[in-house]
Amino acid sequence: MRTFAEATAVRPEGGAFRAELDAHWAVGDKLHGGYLMAVLARAVTAAASHPHTVAVSTSFLLPPAPGPAVVTVVPLREGRSTAQFRATLEQDRTVCAEALVTQGVLDDAEPYWSAAPPPELPPEDDCFLLPADAPGAAFRVHLLDVVEHRLDPASLGFAVGRPSPAGRVGAWLRLADGADWDPLSMLVALDLAPPISLTLGVTGWAPTITFTAYNRRLPAPGPLRILMNAAEITSGRMDETALAWDAKGNLVAQATQLAAIRV
Amino acid sequence: MRTFAEATAVRPEGGAFRAELDAHWAVGDKLHGGYLMAVLARAVTAAASHPHTVAVSTSFLLPPAPGPAVVTVVPLREGRSTAQFRATLEQDRTVCAEALVTQGVLDDAEPYWSAAPPPELPPEDDCFLLPADAPGAAFRVHLLDVVEHRLDPASLGFAVGRPSPAGRVGAWLRLADGADWDPLSMLVALDLAPPISLTLGVTGWAPTITFTAYNRRLPAPGPLRILMNAAEITSGRMDETALAWDAKGNLVAQATQLAAIRV
Repeated sequence: MRTFAEATAVRPEGGAFRAELDAHWAVGDKLHGGYLMAVLARAVTAAASHPHTVAVSTSFLLPPAPGPAVVTVVPLREGRSTAQFRATLEQDRTVCAEALVTQGVLDDAEPYWSAAPPPELPPEDDCFLLPADAPGAAFRVHLLDVVEHRLDPASLGFAVGRPSPAGRVGAWLRLADGADWDPLSMLVALDLAPPISLTLGVTGWAPTITFTAYNRRLPAPGPLRILMNAAEITSGRMDETALAWDAKGNLVAQATQLAAIRV
Repeated sequence: MRTFAEATAVRPEGGAFRAELDAHWAVGDKLHGGYLMAVLARAVTAAASHPHTVAVSTSFLLPPAPGPAVVTVVPLREGRSTAQFRATLEQDRTVCAEALVTQGVLDDAEPYWSAAPPPELPPEDDCFLLPADAPGAAFRVHLLDVVEHRLDPASLGFAVGRPSPAGRVGAWLRLADGADWDPLSMLVALDLAPPISLTLGVTGWAPTITFTAYNRRLPAPGPLRILMNAAEITSGRMDETALAWDAKGNLVAQATQLAAIRV
């Protein structure tokens, strides 16, 4: 099994970047949106003079298959503290995803001001390690082979036929390859699977239409603590908001997405 | 003074759209980000077969000046329930902003599930109508001539030298031209001025780097109720999240932005 760094590697070729999309970073037969954003941001980071991905907004157009893909990076603006890019992921000359990416410099300085303390969660060892093969599930969550996802037991009712109306889940996440989290792998962590809809008892796909992530700080080594919640499911669409804190309890990243859903 | 519909009007010309950016939709000498997104989304809506802007993510590259601008719309994917586009705003052949836009169909159906009740706010008449010319302010907020912004008095401490550490403001908003809110004008409402940083006592510009908005429902006639909060100011950047409810108390739109800030 390839590490996260290997699974998201890109190499320059003919003015673009070539990637080899990895079947393990998938939910059922669909590659994971956070993983695809990490590949896009990896290519932008390779092309940019600022070292870190600070923001990504991605429109998901067509699910790519595992295998070769091409990322094209177009500089839009180069500033002193940030630079902005457009990046597209193509497979067989079809655009699968397009992203607007901001690069900058992240550090681990204390915040000037913060109103986002980490949420209370049971200790990592008291949380439930989600299996890639859940009993009775319609598909295999391969992603859970490569991301260790320990769910707050309070969010686990859906697995035993007792969904919760709270629309909120907490979890501890680690990369199974033992690597520490970084600004690229945090994009995977922010796109938590399962979706909130499943915890509400709505089974079936919730394909992401558009996803926006902000990295706020370089994370300390150790697990990420994630809190995800939704505001509303209406007219076939659901929003999800995720916040991530590192092992020191500092806010490191945040995201929002809009997903399609059939209820 | 032109109405919102007039100030954001676009007309097709040579495969693109021509707009006349209006100096009233500005904070100091900078055109308002929500207004620029409304112009971008107006052009996409004119080009699209789906009637409503459902999602917009915009990278702000260079502040345009009032006057002529050109919006180019590129279709990325046409689906049954949604279609996705790239839109760029240019002035003098320089790209000022680029957006990823999702079009779809909004309605005013009851939500399937909601965890976003409207916040408690004092009645509109008990809130404080913000003036375009604030005593002692370094610049004029022209936007407040065209958007009636009634701020929750609890958020008003900053104006009398007593900033609050809460990082949260509530407000009632109406268009001064008397028009009801729609999916395009809600993009203006979601980019609330003043920024959270000002309520914390941090004066000076907080220029938006990237902004993402989701429209969730067609709003009922009457004022919008907005709640905006920030999670953190760190390493020269601030996030802001806004939620909007209509006069019936239904969630109609939500947004997040990352802004640069000097503290």
